[in-house]
Amino acid sequence: MFSKETYIARRAKLKQTVGSGLLLFLGNDESGMNYADNTYHFRQDSTFLYFFGLSYAELNAIIDIDNDREIIFGDELTIDAIVWMGTQPTLQEKGESIGIADIRPSKEIEEYLKNTRQKKQDIHYLPVYRAEHQVKLLAWLDIYPGTEKPSLSFILGVINQRNYKTVEEIVEIEKACVVTADMHLTAMRMVRPGIRESEVAAAVAEVAYANDYQLSFPIIATINGQTLHNHYHGNMIKSGDMLLLDAGAETEMGYAGDMSSTIPADSIFTVRQKEIYAISVAAHEAAVAALRPGILFEDVYDLSLKVIMEGLKELGFVKGDPMEAVKAGAAALFMPCGLGHMMGLDVHDMENLGEVYVGYDGRLKSTQFGRKSLRLGRKLEPGFVLTIEPGIYFIPELIDLWREQNKFTEFINYEKVVTYKDFSGIRNEEDYLITESGARLLGKKIPIRTEEVEALR
Amino acid sequence: MFSKETYIARRAKLKQTVGSGLLLFLGNDESGMNYADNTYHFRQDSTFLYFFGLSYAELNAIIDIDNDREIIFGDELTIDAIVWMGTQPTLQEKGESIGIADIRPSKEIEEYLKNTRQKKQDIHYLPVYRAEHQVKLLAWLDIYPGTEKPSLSFILGVINQRNYKTVEEIVEIEKACVVTADMHLTAMRMVRPGIRESEVAAAVAEVAYANDYQLSFPIIATINGQTLHNHYHGNMIKSGDMLLLDAGAETEMGYAGDMSSTIPADSIFTVRQKEIYAISVAAHEAAVAALRPGILFEDVYDLSLKVIMEGLKELGFVKGDPMEAVKAGAAALFMPCGLGHMMGLDVHDMENLGEVYVGYDGRLKSTQFGRKSLRLGRKLEPGFVLTIEPGIYFIPELIDLWREQNKFTEFINYEKVVTYKDFSGIRNEEDYLITESGARLLGKKIPIRTEEVEALR
Repeated sequence: MFSKETYIARRAKLKQTVGSGLLLFLGNDESGMNYADNTYHFRQDSTFLYFFGLSYAELNAIIDIDNDREIIFGDELTIDAIVWMGTQPTLQEKGESIGIADIRPSKEIEEYLKNTRQKKQDIHYLPVYRAEHQVKLLAWLDIYPGTEKPSLSFILGVINQRNYKTVEEIVEIEKACVVTADMHLTAMRMVRPGIRESEVAAAVAEVAYANDYQLSFPIIATINGQTLHNHYHGNMIKSGDMLLLDAGAETEMGYAGDMSSTIPADSIFTVRQKEIYAISVAAHEAAVAALRPGILFEDVYDLSLKVIMEGLKELGFVKGDPMEAVKAGAAALFMPCGLGHMMGLDVHDMENLGEVYVGYDGRLKSTQFGRKSLRLGRKLEPGFVLTIEPGIYFIPELIDLWREQNKFTEFINYEKVVTYKDFSGIRNEEDYLITESGARLLGKKIPIRTEEVEALR
Repeated sequence: MFSKETYIARRAKLKQTVGSGLLLFLGNDESGMNYADNTYHFRQDSTFLYFFGLSYAELNAIIDIDNDREIIFGDELTIDAIVWMGTQPTLQEKGESIGIADIRPSKEIEEYLKNTRQKKQDIHYLPVYRAEHQVKLLAWLDIYPGTEKPSLSFILGVINQRNYKTVEEIVEIEKACVVTADMHLTAMRMVRPGIRESEVAAAVAEVAYANDYQLSFPIIATINGQTLHNHYHGNMIKSGDMLLLDAGAETEMGYAGDMSSTIPADSIFTVRQKEIYAISVAAHEAAVAALRPGILFEDVYDLSLKVIMEGLKELGFVKGDPMEAVKAGAAALFMPCGLGHMMGLDVHDMENLGEVYVGYDGRLKSTQFGRKSLRLGRKLEPGFVLTIEPGIYFIPELIDLWREQNKFTEFINYEKVVTYKDFSGIRNEEDYLITESGARLLGKKIPIRTEEVEALR
């Protein structure tokens, strides 16, 4: 945890931004896998972590701006809980560590909220993403699941702090990135024909766990990299395959790293792989070179896609003007996802608060296939932490669909594209901090260029 | 998955047992960690798995006994989902694989249930353990969270099938146990002063993941074994410590293994450790020797505790008649938990359906501290799969509390006990199948006796 002053200052700023009413922070509870007590690893809500720092289940908090109160609601452990789960600091001690003295039993939150509502004060809450949040809002405020009305001023207040990473946060993110890089180096050293995806995924996870870190998201370790979020690990790696690894660590405090690499099964890439891979790296390097405060990230996305389309044109996959193809949406055949996203306490930072606010500053997001998956489009500012992750994918289902629909025949040479339906996909990903003058890579450098990857193997 | 005939037969038997009404099976959905799309690994509900075998999110099922219908409710994947998550068999194909042809869109389940209710047919459902189940019952049947009334006939129908493991299930459980044993062997080979608990936990997890298995429950790997379910992995292992490892694998089909070992940090146990450890092993072996159809498991628990109290009496920790001490509840100071539990598709099999039915056959459970944590008390029958896991724990908080209360001073020699407040805890655990004539160890044997453990190191 950070010092109590950090949390006090964050809350003070939030109170000032939102101005009035009551802010309700729903902490996360334990989540049962197949019965209540067999739980997934506990993950506190990130906004709760940001303002209250306490990573324990069954806590909720209120900042009552109108009455100038900050309250944590929770219950002390019973002796049974201590026997089974061990001791913990008392709630009073936990509160002290973040500058809060007002601790009340869990059961009192309902009455507090109902009183507030009777007095017609505004009750602000954030968008829900777990059913347990819905059940709480129903019980405490009679809000029927699906009819929640999250508070925009609360959302914006949170985003306008969390989007700008402080020095102490960057130190934490960098810790995550260093371990994340080690995860990728481990995979680069072990991938070879005859081992299974699951073995690579397991070794990668081990690196995070051995550091007492968590995974910041489920590991992707697949020879079918064309499926963007493929969590299947059942394949044997064969000669000629590439393994796409997308994996990141999460520090004890909840900060994420997120990198991707594409590793040839054999000690070197095939000629066909190297050609496509080189285009992806060129797109990556063009994007990184463009990073600086003031640039619209959607322009970086366009630039990166243009480099991909230029490269693919040289190889005969596409035709026409590369940038026109990008603007029309034709590049989405090869890269139907975004170029990057904000990263912090969440690997897709604040995704639960709404991309349009986090990544677009309220600007309307495109609904174009591909471009709509760009999670970040806004003007970059110092303190933003984001990923750069262009890729080139040959997705058989999408190729077949577009070809059937004669989609973008002015840009796409389907005769050539279909011969790559078995190519799979390539992605490289690094994490950057936007600085006053440009951008800085976070964590250790992992091999990206083909010669760097091959040198390690 | 098993053959479609297995699932057809299981459902047929269940229909016959419950007799009438409609059986509602709530499948599990994806669970977001810190936002909706950053999910924990998916775990299907075990009863859903048992009768429908399909390990996919967003499925629900109905067995309408009165109208002789079996229906799966779910939706086909969109092209966006395929691009991001990959292809899957169609719902029709999934249904065929388990002998169900009646597939309907998700949105139709609500109307189906409301029609059924209008016709005054009984709607049976099981106890809920995830908030998402509560939200579904609220949306479909206006059941307010916390007011659920699970169906006893449905519960008993499920338990009376799932408690008796078939040959094909035992094969699956044994697969889990073999990998579970490897997890423990890995730890036994690596534990030494100077490595961290998290490194051991990570290596143990890697064994499961490399096999493309999951963990059947969160790993316990702690030098503070006196805390029964201690998930903290932040300590460095020092000379003189013991590491208590409780870990198990879960097969792709969802079957669990569950073993515990206690490993000295140094290559051999200290004399003090060996004395206590020997008692724990004696209690273990006495329990295993007693396993046979017809014996009350609560009697095996008593027997095992009696061996512990006898041993501790010899060392001067306790006094008086050992069995009297056990019956009075005094042994709970050293073993405040049970001796074992049913195991199958859940590591604590069917814990969500109620221990009183699963483990006690409807017989009242004791409320005595310690004995109340015995999850299994009933008469054993062939086909039961259960764990044997006695242990001896020195829990400082509990010792202090009881001593303050002058609890069981006729049995406990507190002067001696307090000198062991830094001892930590010991547990050994194996998995057994009750056979016609006795019991059979599942999986590979892991070293349990001190000389076996030391020989490996």
